[in-house]
Amino acid sequence: MAKLLLGKEVNASINEEIKAKVEKLKAQDITPALGIIRIGEREDDIAYEKSAAKRCETLGVAYEKFLLPADVKEEEVLKTISQVNKNDKIHGVLLFRPLPKHLNEDRIVNALAVEKDVDGITDLSMAGVFMGKDMGYAPCTPSACMKVLEHYGIDCTGKKVVVIGRSLVVGKPAAMMLLKKNATVTVCHTRTVDMPSVVKEADIVVVAAGKAGVIDGNYLREGQIVIDVGINVNEEGKLCGDVNFEEAEKIVDAITPVPRGVGGVTTSILLEHVVDAAIVQNR
Amino acid sequence: MAKLLLGKEVNASINEEIKAKVEKLKAQDITPALGIIRIGEREDDIAYEKSAAKRCETLGVAYEKFLLPADVKEEEVLKTISQVNKNDKIHGVLLFRPLPKHLNEDRIVNALAVEKDVDGITDLSMAGVFMGKDMGYAPCTPSACMKVLEHYGIDCTGKKVVVIGRSLVVGKPAAMMLLKKNATVTVCHTRTVDMPSVVKEADIVVVAAGKAGVIDGNYLREGQIVIDVGINVNEEGKLCGDVNFEEAEKIVDAITPVPRGVGGVTTSILLEHVVDAAIVQNR
Repeated sequence: MAKLLLGKEVNASINEEIKAKVEKLKAQDITPALGIIRIGEREDDIAYEKSAAKRCETLGVAYEKFLLPADVKEEEVLKTISQVNKNDKIHGVLLFRPLPKHLNEDRIVNALAVEKDVDGITDLSMAGVFMGKDMGYAPCTPSACMKVLEHYGIDCTGKKVVVIGRSLVVGKPAAMMLLKKNATVTVCHTRTVDMPSVVKEADIVVVAAGKAGVIDGNYLREGQIVIDVGINVNEEGKLCGDVNFEEAEKIVDAITPVPRGVGGVTTSILLEHVVDAAIVQNR
Repeated sequence: MAKLLLGKEVNASINEEIKAKVEKLKAQDITPALGIIRIGEREDDIAYEKSAAKRCETLGVAYEKFLLPADVKEEEVLKTISQVNKNDKIHGVLLFRPLPKHLNEDRIVNALAVEKDVDGITDLSMAGVFMGKDMGYAPCTPSACMKVLEHYGIDCTGKKVVVIGRSLVVGKPAAMMLLKKNATVTVCHTRTVDMPSVVKEADIVVVAAGKAGVIDGNYLREGQIVIDVGINVNEEGKLCGDVNFEEAEKIVDAITPVPRGVGGVTTSILLEHVVDAAIVQNR
């Protein structure tokens, strides 16, 4: 049976680090703060907002909500972002997407100051991840994958890592972060031919396929470490990942379950970015 | 014996396209123009400048040189860039790097307007390549690799492509451009373990290792297509690539020689970018 790589264990150590940083900041009269910009009342957004707010409270990070109606005018959104950019009491910003269709998402996202882009959504944060340059922040989900590997002492140097998925939110930034850690990285996607044989070659597999349980036993072999980024609801209404967990856990060496895996680490990374942003902005 | 993928054949077809576009522009009284900013008198820079200028003349593209002394002050460089940005007669800019050490290269490069960044050096051009977003231009060398593949009708979809090298000038952007063309892309580098066996898996190999002749027959197999990006001078003072050509041409199906391969295509891509920039800026 595979070893379970558990989000709560990773979170415990991130939270310790965050708390120590928050204490140091508070000794300088600085309270790190997250600005949350939500447009409309989407259930998913509200659920994530609640979990982020709760985590803020636990860790001594402040937050301020900027709630705008679903039919808000673009100028109004840009004005809000400009105010948050200028507000030196707010160090990082979470802007829920997708935005309502009448808004120019590209223009709005890139109005955000890169140094406050703790969720890694601006073009400059993307350039930062791609270039390995200290600019903006990497998206939270691939950062969470890297943190899980780091927490469990899994060194990527010289390892064959296969990333399944080429999205800007997970696959591509994960590939860049793994390259930076000296892994030999292969990116697979829907057009990959004979994916099972490609994935079997990997020492570490990062799965962001976006489809429940598609990575089954045929893709896996003994000795592998599997990071499952997927969050899906299966036919029985239960949360599940992109990996067929029952099959995988019998084969591989270690795996992140869903739930209880990478998902919960994402919020911790967001908070870590806010605290790091507060440190940088007060240097 | 491998088929030779020749730069001059690729150039012939790019040049036809460029000439047709230039004619259309001239019919609207627009002459596409390249601004060349050179600081100091480095031999490499002057050689490339000459070949770019000559190509401009052949294709009906204008150019203007902005020559600054090696000890120029940063403000002066930034002023020059600002003037070129504002000059609507200049559509693209070639800025030679590395800059002299006393200058802040990051600040200077990113002062350049992204829409004129035909050499793909700004952070926003990098974000464009990474995101697959229409913003700025990809660096000329990986674009030249893609053009060679395209010219010879080599479809990347579903192919296994191994990129050797993870630089920002070739390896990483090449990987992104190949992913966009639906290849399954693996990036190898100095920390890759057992690189020969990884490279042998590839259908297409893009070599930007930066070392003369390191990719020898042990890395290659029948049926492969090899794009050699390397430009080195060997012990006998001759130009050579990163691939051991004598060994490779006996094994693989097709290969770009050095010289006469990718290198010469790079300048054509630069000019193509200038002409495309002129079209976009006059829409």
